[in-house]
Amino acid sequence: MYKLVLIRHGESVWNKENRFTGWTDVDLSEKGMQEARNAGRKMEEQGFVFKYAYTSFLKRAIKTLDIALDKMNLLWIPVEKSWRLNEKHYGKLQGLNKREMVEKYGEEQVLIWRRSYDIRPPQLDLTDVRHPKYNIRYQGIDDIAATPGTESLLDTINRIIPYWENNIQSKLIEHKEIIISAHGNSLRAIVKYLKKMDDNAIVQLNIPTGIPYVFEFDDTLNLIKDYFLADEETLKKLMDEVANQGKK
Amino acid sequence: MYKLVLIRHGESVWNKENRFTGWTDVDLSEKGMQEARNAGRKMEEQGFVFKYAYTSFLKRAIKTLDIALDKMNLLWIPVEKSWRLNEKHYGKLQGLNKREMVEKYGEEQVLIWRRSYDIRPPQLDLTDVRHPKYNIRYQGIDDIAATPGTESLLDTINRIIPYWENNIQSKLIEHKEIIISAHGNSLRAIVKYLKKMDDNAIVQLNIPTGIPYVFEFDDTLNLIKDYFLADEETLKKLMDEVANQGKK
Repeated sequence: MYKLVLIRHGESVWNKENRFTGWTDVDLSEKGMQEARNAGRKMEEQGFVFKYAYTSFLKRAIKTLDIALDKMNLLWIPVEKSWRLNEKHYGKLQGLNKREMVEKYGEEQVLIWRRSYDIRPPQLDLTDVRHPKYNIRYQGIDDIAATPGTESLLDTINRIIPYWENNIQSKLIEHKEIIISAHGNSLRAIVKYLKKMDDNAIVQLNIPTGIPYVFEFDDTLNLIKDYFLADEETLKKLMDEVANQGKK
Repeated sequence: MYKLVLIRHGESVWNKENRFTGWTDVDLSEKGMQEARNAGRKMEEQGFVFKYAYTSFLKRAIKTLDIALDKMNLLWIPVEKSWRLNEKHYGKLQGLNKREMVEKYGEEQVLIWRRSYDIRPPQLDLTDVRHPKYNIRYQGIDDIAATPGTESLLDTINRIIPYWENNIQSKLIEHKEIIISAHGNSLRAIVKYLKKMDDNAIVQLNIPTGIPYVFEFDDTLNLIKDYFLADEETLKKLMDEVANQGKK
């Protein structure tokens, strides 16, 4: 039996301010750190002992992982970081307040940008200093997809699935129990792949922050079941919160 | 030109209580975390941009690294952890207060255990639950040296130098600027090797905690110079503090 835990980073400073974040490297808020500690405590209680961990190039996911692993006394395990696990790139919307966007473009357009499967937000100009090509951490990455000026959920899926197939899957088999700390949309990509969800279903899925999402597989890596480490009521409340972020 | 920075972890909870730590996985104290933040700030001011990092399996070194990298906005770089960078194993002395030891065994014997080149402290029994063989993180490591019940400085050197030669050195060449966050004795091993110090000289060297120790190499990896990122006065004070830990 193999176990994979997905965890979406806790609240960041910009989540709190309701701003589009994407690839912007925003820190966790105090509440976000507390969410990570709670997640670590919960996973330890449930007897998880990860042998390998993945996270993105963004500090809110890295710190969520580090804080949770520290709670579990597992800081010593190998941690692999990849830009492929980054949040969806939100293009020119990065840094803008979600509610301001709603007032300017209307709720429907904002919802499309946030939740459409294949429509990209307006692209960052190549001369914009926020473009990934100016960021040292994305240099030396051959794949052109490494430096997008914007992404749809489909683009995000397209850069994550090869990483799953060529890297994560074999580590899961080797280590049996692994964790991935990442972002709303990069985790959607993985959930869609693992649960064979269709394009409409995945955009409806709202993964709550800081709640470990467990996937159990049989010996031939067939998915047996998936569940959150939280009670029904807590879960519903958290999912509604995420879904309502873009509303007035 | 290649640059290597060694950093000894900041104060741990047991340093503060003057207890032998060794492989015991003790956390940083508040002061230790502050030392790590200061080190990160100093390295950033000096323009260091590490591309690769090493640390041990022990949280006081891992956290020192993480805190410093966070200050430098470099949390995203690859971090490789190895038991080979662990502190010297202190055998049965682990957990004992240094001053109590001095009263019991005399200052000379304690100084021998702390500072001798090749004399090992009394060995942990194989039935002692503190023995590394019972710790999950050391399981699956083939090398017998992975689970010692005690170590001399020579033993520590003998497990680190192959790691330097087979792994760290090529990463230094590949990435040009790397950092190693580790412990008093594991860093002594590296310093001895790099500076070709003799057995007597190395036991006299007291590496201060939380002060980045920079090594610059030419294109053929000859050591050009080494220096601490601290003024003379601060440095002397810190080195004396370390040297005096075992005294009454």
